[in-house]
Formats: sequence, C-alpha cells, structure tokens
Amino acid sequence: MQRHQIGILGATGMVGQRFIQLLEQHPWFEVVWLAASDKSSGKRYGDAVKWKLDTPLPAHIAQMQISPATPESAPKIIFAALDSDIARELEPKFAAAGCAVISNSSAFRMQQDVPLVIPEVNGDHLPLLEKQTWRKQSGGYLVTNPNCSAIGLVLALKPLEERFGLDAIFVSTMQAVSGAGYPGVPSLDILGNVVPYIKSEEEKMQEETLKLLGSLKDDRVQPLEAKISAHCNRVPVEDGHTESVSIKLRKPATREQILAAWQEFRPLAGQNLPTAPAQPIEFIPADDRPQPRLDRMRGHGMAAVVGRLRPCTLFDWKFTVLSHNTIRGAAGAALLNAELLATLGKLEPAAVPA
Amino acid sequence: MQRHQIGILGATGMVGQRFIQLLEQHPWFEVVWLAASDKSSGKRYGDAVKWKLDTPLPAHIAQMQISPATPESAPKIIFAALDSDIARELEPKFAAAGCAVISNSSAFRMQQDVPLVIPEVNGDHLPLLEKQTWRKQSGGYLVTNPNCSAIGLVLALKPLEERFGLDAIFVSTMQAVSGAGYPGVPSLDILGNVVPYIKSEEEKMQEETLKLLGSLKDDRVQPLEAKISAHCNRVPVEDGHTESVSIKLRKPATREQILAAWQEFRPLAGQNLPTAPAQPIEFIPADDRPQPRLDRMRGHGMAAVVGRLRPCTLFDWKFTVLSHNTIRGAAGAALLNAELLATLGKLEPAAVPA
Amino acid sequence: MQRHQIGILGATGMVGQRFIQLLEQHPWFEVVWLAASDKSSGKRYGDAVKWKLDTPLPAHIAQMQISPATPESAPKIIFAALDSDIARELEPKFAAAGCAVISNSSAFRMQQDVPLVIPEVNGDHLPLLEKQTWRKQSGGYLVTNPNCSAIGLVLALKPLEERFGLDAIFVSTMQAVSGAGYPGVPSLDILGNVVPYIKSEEEKMQEETLKLLGSLKDDRVQPLEAKISAHCNRVPVEDGHTESVSIKLRKPATREQILAAWQEFRPLAGQNLPTAPAQPIEFIPADDRPQPRLDRMRGHGMAAVVGRLRPCTLFDWKFTVLSHNTIRGAAGAALLNAELLATLGKLEPAAVPA
Amino acid sequence: MQRHQIGILGATGMVGQRFIQLLEQHPWFEVVWLAASDKSSGKRYGDAVKWKLDTPLPAHIAQMQISPATPESAPKIIFAALDSDIARELEPKFAAAGCAVISNSSAFRMQQDVPLVIPEVNGDHLPLLEKQTWRKQSGGYLVTNPNCSAIGLVLALKPLEERFGLDAIFVSTMQAVSGAGYPGVPSLDILGNVVPYIKSEEEKMQEETLKLLGSLKDDRVQPLEAKISAHCNRVPVEDGHTESVSIKLRKPATREQILAAWQEFRPLAGQNLPTAPAQPIEFIPADDRPQPRLDRMRGHGMAAVVGRLRPCTLFDWKFTVLSHNTIRGAAGAALLNAELLATLGKLEPAAVPA
Repeated sequence: MQRHQIGILGATGMVGQRFIQLLEQHPWFEVVWLAASDKSSGKRYGDAVKWKLDTPLPAHIAQMQISPATPESAPKIIFAALDSDIARELEPKFAAAGCAVISNSSAFRMQQDVPLVIPEVNGDHLPLLEKQTWRKQSGGYLVTNPNCSAIGLVLALKPLEERFGLDAIFVSTMQAVSGAGYPGVPSLDILGNVVPYIKSEEEKMQEETLKLLGSLKDDRVQPLEAKISAHCNRVPVEDGHTESVSIKLRKPATREQILAAWQEFRPLAGQNLPTAPAQPIEFIPADDRPQPRLDRMRGHGMAAVVGRLRPCTLFDWKFTVLSHNTIRGAAGAALLNAELLATLGKLEPAAVPA
Repeated sequence: MQRHQIGILGATGMVGQRFIQLLEQHPWFEVVWLAASDKSSGKRYGDAVKWKLDTPLPAHIAQMQISPATPESAPKIIFAALDSDIARELEPKFAAAGCAVISNSSAFRMQQDVPLVIPEVNGDHLPLLEKQTWRKQSGGYLVTNPNCSAIGLVLALKPLEERFGLDAIFVSTMQAVSGAGYPGVPSLDILGNVVPYIKSEEEKMQEETLKLLGSLKDDRVQPLEAKISAHCNRVPVEDGHTESVSIKLRKPATREQILAAWQEFRPLAGQNLPTAPAQPIEFIPADDRPQPRLDRMRGHGMAAVVGRLRPCTLFDWKFTVLSHNTIRGAAGAALLNAELLATLGKLEPAAVPA
Repeated sequence: MQRHQIGILGATGMVGQRFIQLLEQHPWFEVVWLAASDKSSGKRYGDAVKWKLDTPLPAHIAQMQISPATPESAPKIIFAALDSDIARELEPKFAAAGCAVISNSSAFRMQQDVPLVIPEVNGDHLPLLEKQTWRKQSGGYLVTNPNCSAIGLVLALKPLEERFGLDAIFVSTMQAVSGAGYPGVPSLDILGNVVPYIKSEEEKMQEETLKLLGSLKDDRVQPLEAKISAHCNRVPVEDGHTESVSIKLRKPATREQILAAWQEFRPLAGQNLPTAPAQPIEFIPADDRPQPRLDRMRGHGMAAVVGRLRPCTLFDWKFTVLSHNTIRGAAGAALLNAELLATLGKLEPAAVPA
Repeated sequence: MQRHQIGILGATGMVGQRFIQLLEQHPWFEVVWLAASDKSSGKRYGDAVKWKLDTPLPAHIAQMQISPATPESAPKIIFAALDSDIARELEPKFAAAGCAVISNSSAFRMQQDVPLVIPEVNGDHLPLLEKQTWRKQSGGYLVTNPNCSAIGLVLALKPLEERFGLDAIFVSTMQAVSGAGYPGVPSLDILGNVVPYIKSEEEKMQEETLKLLGSLKDDRVQPLEAKISAHCNRVPVEDGHTESVSIKLRKPATREQILAAWQEFRPLAGQNLPTAPAQPIEFIPADDRPQPRLDRMRGHGMAAVVGRLRPCTLFDWKFTVLSHNTIRGAAGAALLNAELLATLGKLEPAAVPA
C-alpha cells in the first residue's frame, strides 16, 4: 500500500517531536514535509531541533530541510502542533488551501463546526467537518483532539456515561511538565514543588469534556448536560497526567458494573487502526496505582489507566486516571484521529463540491 | 519564669526532630527527657538520631541520653511523636501515670473522650479531657492534634463554616514525603512520580475534619453535619501539603466576604501563645500560589496559606490551601496545643480527685 | 533450538526484576525457577514482588511459585542477584552443587579464581573458572560481572588502554537511586539533594577497574598497572550512572584517534550474542550529552554512551560516560556473560572430572 | 551610624533578589535604588519581579519604583547582578561615573586591574582597584567576586595552600539550578537527569581559582602555579553546589593537619563584618556529608562546608565541598566584599585625584 504523505506544522516542539517519533515506521503515513517557526526555516531539522525524547532522532528526518510554514509546498495532510496563537493564524490558511489539518491546538476546538474528537469516544462527530466553509470551498478541513488533561478523563468517563449517565464530575489534576512544551516550566518553579495553576487549563478541561461527551444533533454538538469542576496543578513529573476524579451517576452502578464497563469498552475493535490500543481503558487493581512513572506507557502510551475505584462519600464513586500527555494527550491523539479519517475516506484527494 | 520540663516520646523520628528544633529556645518549655525505641535507649541522642533537618542538631540535645519509653523517669508533660501502633500501647501508660500527653499520633484522635484540637479552631473542645478516666485517677490525660493533611484544610474552612455554614467539601491533596517519616517513601517510588494512595489518609481527613469542626455538647463532640470526600496523593515534594478544595456553603458568600473571613480570623489574638502565628490564614493573591517551596514557611511554618479563590462550577467556591506538614501539621500543632493547655492551667501538677 | 533452563536467585529485587524483564522472549534462555528470601518462599511471584519496572510483569512469571533458595530444586544455570552478604553464603552452595552461577554480586568479584568479566573487555579471563575447586568437584562455577559504576567506565577505557595505554584515571560519579535497590535510598535523602557517599563504592570501582583491564597470566589476573581515584555520589536520577572522567595516557592520542578507538571497538562483532549492543560505545557529539534521561537506553540499555571529549588541563583528556546501571550495569551484564559462556560451551551439562 | 545608600543593578533576577533578601535589615547598607531591564523600568518592583525566594518580598521594596539602568540617578555604591553581556556594557558606565561597582558578573573578573576577591582568601588584592582608570578619573571602580562554583572550592583550598602548598587540583561539580538564574534551566532538562555541561563554567573555575589563590606583585596578580582541571555538571538541586575534589600538595600533610588548617582558618576574625561567617570552613565528620539540602545554610549560607576527607589513591587527599551558590556564591560574596571595602574606607565619597 502506498502511504499517505503528511506534513508536520510545528515540527521542532515537544509535540512535533512526538509526531516524528510515532510516525517512524507508521504503516499508513510518511513524513515528507516539516515546518517550524521562521527562524528554523531552511535549516536541517537535525540542526534546528532540540531533540528531547529518549529514542534517537531518526537519521533521515534529521537530514530533512525545514520548509516555510505556508501551504504552497505542503502535502495535503497536515499534523499541526502549534501554539494556540499561531494555530489561530496558520491553521485556517492550510485548511483553506485544501489541506486536511489534524490539529492538537486549542485554538478551534470549541468552534461550532470543528470536530473535537477522540475516536473511541465520539468519532461520530466527524461529519461536522463537512459543514466547514473550507471543506466546501477547497476540500480542506480542520479536526482537533482535546487538551492533554481532558483526554484521559473523557476516556474513563465515556463508558460510564453510556451505561449509567453522568450527573456531576469533580477532577483534580497533577500534570507533567512536558505538557507545557519546551523550554516550558522553569526548573526553579517545579523542583520539589507544586504549582497550583495552569493558564486556561481548567476552562478547557471543563468545556472540552462536555463537548466530547455530547451528541451531534442537527449539525451541531449538544454538550453533555452534566456539571463539572476541574482543579489543575503542575507537579514535578516528566510525562503523564494523573487525575483524582469523583463522579455522580444518574443510575446506580456497582463496582463490578463499573469495572465491566471499562473492561468491555472497545469501540474501535475490528477497525485495525495502527495507533489504537487494544484496551483503551486499563484498570490496575493494586491499591497504589496508576502511577505515571510505571503506567504511562500502557498501550504504547495510548491507554487511559484507571485505578483506586472506591465509593465517594460525597458523590457515588471516585477513582484515579492516568494518561500519557504527549502521546495519548497530544501526538498520538491526533494520529489516531488521522487513522480514523483515513478509514472514512476523508484523507483522499477531495473533490471540491461543484 | 521557670519553664515547664517536658519530655519527647519518639524523639528520633522526623516529628521528634521537629519538636526538638521548635523547642530550642522556647520561652515556656524545656526539653529534659528524650525517649525512643528500645534499640536507641541508653545511647547519646546525637548517636542514635539520623538528623534530617537543615538546622544543626543543638549540641546540648545531642549530648542527652535516651531514656526508656516508660513513665517512671519521665517528666509530667510529654510530647508524643509515635507511630500509631506504638502510640496505642504507650500513650495510655503515660496518661495513667499522671502525664499530660500531647500527642501527634492518630491512635486516639477519634476516641470519644479525647480532644482532637486545633487551638484556633476548637480550643473549646479541651474540657473533654476532664472526662478521661486517666484524668480522674491520676491527673494525666491525652490531647491530640489532627492529621497533617486535615489541619490546613480545617484552618481554611473554620471561618467559612462560622460565617456561611458548610454543606459539602471536596478535597484532593498533593502531600510531601516528609509526612511518611524516615526512611518513609522510597525514592524509586516518588522521583518523577505521583503515588495516588496513602494508607488510611482519606478516612482520617474525612472524619477528623468533621470532628474538628463539630461542637461540644453534653460532654461529647457532635461532628459537623457536612459531606466531605478526600483524595490523597503523594508527590515529590520535601515539605508542605498542597490541597485543591471545592466547597458548597449554606449561605451565599461573595469573594470579598470569604477573603474577609480569612483575613479577620485571629481567634488567639491577645493570648500571646509563642507558637501561634499572627495571621493563621494568609491569602496570596497571585494566580499561581500558594506553592510549597515558596510558601510553606509563612508564619514560621504555622500559617495555612490560601490562594486561587475562584467560583466553582459545581459547588460554590474553590481554592488551594497549603500548610507545612511537619510544623503546622505535626510538631507545631502539638506545641500550640500545649501552649493553650498551659494558659488554661492544665499543665500544672494536677491534684488527683479524692 | 531448545532453550537453556535458568533460575534466578534474588528474583524479587530490582536486579531480579530486570532479569525477568530482559529474559522475557530471550532466544536462548527460559526462566523456570525463581527464588527469593525465606519470607517470599512458597508465594506466587506476582504476590511477593513489588514490581517497579515500567513494562508489565509477564503473566506467566507472575503465576510462578517462588522456590526455596537451595540448589536441590534449581536448574543448572543460575542468575544471581543477591545482596553481598547473602551471596557470600548462598552462591558457593549452588556452585558446589554443580550450577553455573552467573552473579551480579560483589561478594566474590575480587577472589583470585573468580572471573570478573565484561564480554567486550576481558572475555579471555573466563578460563579462570576452570581453576575453581567447585568446577573440579561438581562442574559448577562462579562468574561475576562488575559493579554498576565500574562497567561504563571500563567499557570506555578499554579501547584507549589497548591503543594508547592508561597511566592514570580520575573519575567522579553521579549515580542513580536504582543502584541501591528497593526500598533503597529514602526519598527524604535525595529529593533536591546530592549524597556524596555510597558505602564501599569507591573501593569497588577502583579495584574492579584494574582487574577488568588486567591480563590473565599463569592462571591469575595481573591487574592493570595504572593509578585510579574514584569519587562516588548519589543524585536524584532514577536510572543511569553519569561519570566525569580524566585520563592520562602512556602514548599521545589525538581527538580523532580516541573517537576512532571508540567507534571501532566491536570485539563481539560476528558472535551474535543476543544481548550484545551493535555499538558498545556510542559517542554523542552534542556539547551537553550524554544525559541519563535521554541516553541511558542506547543499545537497549547496553551501550556505554560517551561525550564531551576535550583536553584535560591536568591529564590528557577528559570526557563523560553514561551507562544504564540496572541493565548494562547489572542484569544485562550478567546476561551477556551467560551468552558468552553459552557460545564457549560452558553452559552444557558438565562432566565432573574423574 | 548612618547607613550607606546602595543601588542594585539587575534587581529582578535571582541574584538581585538575594541581594534584597540579604540587605533587609543590614546594619551598614540601605537599598535606595533598584534598576533592571528596560521593560521593567518605571514599574513598581513588586509588579516587575517574579519573586522566587522563600521569605516574603519586603513590603517597602515592593513599593519602590524601578529606575533606568543609568548612573545619573544612582547612588555611589552599586551591587551589580547582571548577565555577563550586559555587565560588559553597563558596569564601566557606572564605574566611570564615580560609582563603586561591586559586581557578581564574570565580565571583568579576569581583567588585569580588576580585583577578583574573596575577603577570607585574598582581600589583599583589593589595592589593585587603585590602578583602574575609572578610579583615577572619577573615583569609581569595579570589584568582582568569583563564579559560584569557584568560591567554595577556593575557600576550602586556601588554608591548605598556605600551609602545604598546592600542586594539582581535580574538581568535579554537581551544581544547583539556581546558578542558571530564572527561567534558567528548563525542567524537562533536569528532572531526574544530569546535564554534564555548563557553558564556560569549567574555564571560569580553572582560571578564577588560580587568580584568587595567586599573589599581588608589582601591581598585578601572579596566578598560583598549580594545575587544575574542572568537570562541571548540573543536577536537580535547587540551591547549593557540591564538589568532589582531589588535591596534590607540595608538602605532606596528615589528616589532622588538614582538619586543623580548616578549623583554624578565620582570617576575618575581629573585623566584625556583618556577613562574614564565624567559621568560614565547617567540617562535618559524618560519612555522607555535606549535602546541599541539609548543609547549604551553614553560617547563614556563607560557610564552605567540607566533609569526606580521605586519602586519594591518585593524588594526596580527596574531599567534598559544598557552598550555597546564590548566597556565598553570589549575593553574599558581593556583600562581604562591600563590607570589607567599607572597613578600608573605599566606600566613602572619593576625592577625584587632581
């Protein structure tokens, strides 16, 4: 099979690096184009990047020249790993030029005609993209994945919402420093410390969660009708966001029913998406798990790992959920979105509607 | 003024060390007796202890000989910093021998006739001690301070309970490793990691909080009627517990009213207790505070430091509270209890009832 | 090919866990027997172990029952990962019972008839094992690998010794906490801290380095005649020992010659040992490498990673070397020794000399 | 006594903050002027600074307005905490305008007519300042203190050089992140990691050490004739540089003689400089000390703390030295220089030579 040629916008950042790592030897996609900020443009990627992953930078990628961040030279499938401000400016240009823009940025996630998607959760929201003006005019479009702190939570909640209904959600996060990119969090701020604040993070978690768990009706997403309150904290962990969660359900559920809901949640089974984990939600029965250092790589970094399920004295149940913030929470999320789009035929050269 | 002679049970542990540090040059108390486990008994304190504080071990304390942990040789005022199992066995022996046992252990905190006290919060529960059989028989008694994770929370909640009433409390903690003593948490478990579990901690936080905020009626404490749910996590921080809190009030309160309640909360004003902080609750307006590394030493480690007050989308308000877990949360708490007992005349040689 | 059946002594410790991880799907060896301390004996391995690696414990291993640490039930090839005191007592029993004991312990490393071996460095010392009384009497023997701090250093030095001769070595280490096992280093000792002391470590580094670089003559190892001084420090790193090294050579060497010596050092090429890294010494040209977090997994954790080669104002050259302390420095080292022994026919059922 | 009015150049940086902290309630100096980068100029200090110390920002300092970094409005005594590039441009302007510039920057340390001084070590180099053109023309001058990594080393070496002579010095550092300022080292680079490189640091340590231990002859400093080689590493520690040192002496010395040399080293005794530690070199006999977390605040952060004195198998002796990098290694060093200059009458309004 010939692989789709793809480009990466924001290729030198932490998420860009993860895209490169995850796309190395990907059966469906081939990286042919890398773009970054103006000051990197024209350089060899290997010279421009500060590679921060613990697998070596692939040699052929290191040799690639960084292109200007304009659609002219770009392929028609773009993974975008841009800061929000830049995404707001650049992503529409690529969509307008006919590109399928699979974005990790927060810039357009809440826009009404932009799908915000986790394939296991709400792949059925993807048809929204057909409503985009870009789609109608050039065939291009924009699809987004959620914030790194929302994605693990929503995976854990989805099967519970399906079976029991969700009424209220409390979540308090302990987020890894890689979520802030590079250079990101200064070491003086986080060594032996906790920072109880991440700009705009609580708002994103709250509104994205409800959109993701919402339903598509009449060409728009009706957010889930539930209450949610998030507390977001930064802790001295390299990778992996850990979250303490309390939930109130609409119907009673036993411990066994909740465990079954998680265990049986395999909505992508049979679709053979290369990046989809066999078990999207892994439950660890040990008292003191999940832990980021030990469990973030479950499902090749794509699983939501849950543990400590126990009754909540305030709501119904409480538990801990962990997910890898730069794999499941960023590059892997976008990649899985792209894989789902591929199976839906949305990555083929699009015919512009007459 | 002649100083009260005091002894320390469990003098070599982390909390025992804090007692020694805080009692150095204390105007009211003088350390004359140190006891520890059998294997340390008879040794010079300086030889038996692994001193882990960043101020030097006082030379005269280093020279003291460690006594057996029996009341025979002990003074009549005992600060107890024992593990719970050992406390359950030893503390009653000292109380029965006529000692005022000011304990940091969890062993008897929830016992009906044992005061569990934070002087700023519920010093009026102290008369409970008169109901103790030990008190009646020997003059001795047992007074306790709360768990290190409960104390900051309860300080922050008390003025809000007084002015607005508390209906529900959600709290998620990020606790320092010193809370587990020494050797305590293995470094392999916590470097770059979060452990979402501390044995029995959530239960203690929940029940102690309600007892502390309860009221003494008919010789027993009626716990506060409110719902509370705690999530307890360990993070790679040396000292200082940080807690994300959401609360539902019985009466509406504005931001200004809450800040005023905290600001004006000085229940010990005028009592001149040496360890009492001038401002028990310090609010920091900056977005990203309190932080353990920067703020745990406010009020010489005795303040509850609050910040990030903002509306809660699920309850009424949310905020972050920080307190130093081995000062305000342990040794300093017991010391302040002792100071309050001293002003009440409860540290004087007691007459055994005829 | 039928795989050799092997046993692991000390299977629940950190190095024992690495053995299990590295032996999973090993083409030559199959784990059939696990032994640990008396208190674990008889338990399911999955119940007895505190698994601390970031890959899941293999299910079939979890089900295995832990055997008593006696040779009666054991297979004839034993990987030993015991504390030194216990090794001193147990390893001779297994060797005397006819077992090939491939040990990671320090107990017998410096004994005259015990090979201390790194396959790339001094595989030619292995014939020493034939001098062991155990070998003569039962066919069993004892082979050891070096201390985790010595192994990276010696790999980096070996090709320089061969080409230029070594006169003097200064080394200062920054060692990971996993080197101390579990629970090992208390977090209160190492969070935000350096401990400039590891018991007996400097002595081991010094004497083992000279034995490893020595030559076998007349049935004994003549240690290298060079001066060496080691400073050993513990730092808050999970895995990977980093070492600052200065060396004085016997013959002058240019930077290019040193780099070539490292680059061309492939003494096991063509032997197809499964655990041998293709490139035992990897040089990284970037100014600020190697770094443990980024580079410890080079060569699947089996490479010595060098960098920062620059002239020394006191000796001739200085550089930094990094190696993974529980893979190349422990379990992987023993495994590679076993693989070399297998190719030499020393793992076959041995005929006891008549 | 009326206090000298002083100004701080670079007041918002990490060292600038330490100046403010250390000068609060200083008996001789009063902060009357703060300058920082252009973007801060005109702002309230409290609004411009990201205060990162664990004591609160003094309220009266918070209210001060930040001045432009020009000498016109400045007092005649300037503490300078500027990055090297900016120092190279700005410090001469202040010296030329008649200011006593007491600088922590590396820009002019090695300039022939600029004293590089540690008061306990080479206060007798201060007369060099009279050779400066600035001094002759305006009365202003420039005095510097050494790099944060050199200062602890040199303090520990000075009494040994005096009594036994130094022939060769090996030093390998483990340096705290605060040495890189703020934001400084990104957390992704240092959490659970070691970075074996700090730009220009080894060169500075080597050349500054020899200048500091040199002697003033014929109006210039003859550097010490000794060989020195430094390895500089960054570790995940907030404050406190730890250094492994091996030394070769010119005359033999016993352990007792070395300990005595350190113990008796009190060159400033009787001078009553407020910032001078009573014991500039503190030796800790415990095996595993000094450690940054426990010992960096010895002598109020102004002591060089030594330990682990033991024979070196390569040179004569080896030991560990620790010093607080932003107190003794930066702001405190400059402050002590200023105090010494004050006692020498060099801070009085200078008469410009006719």
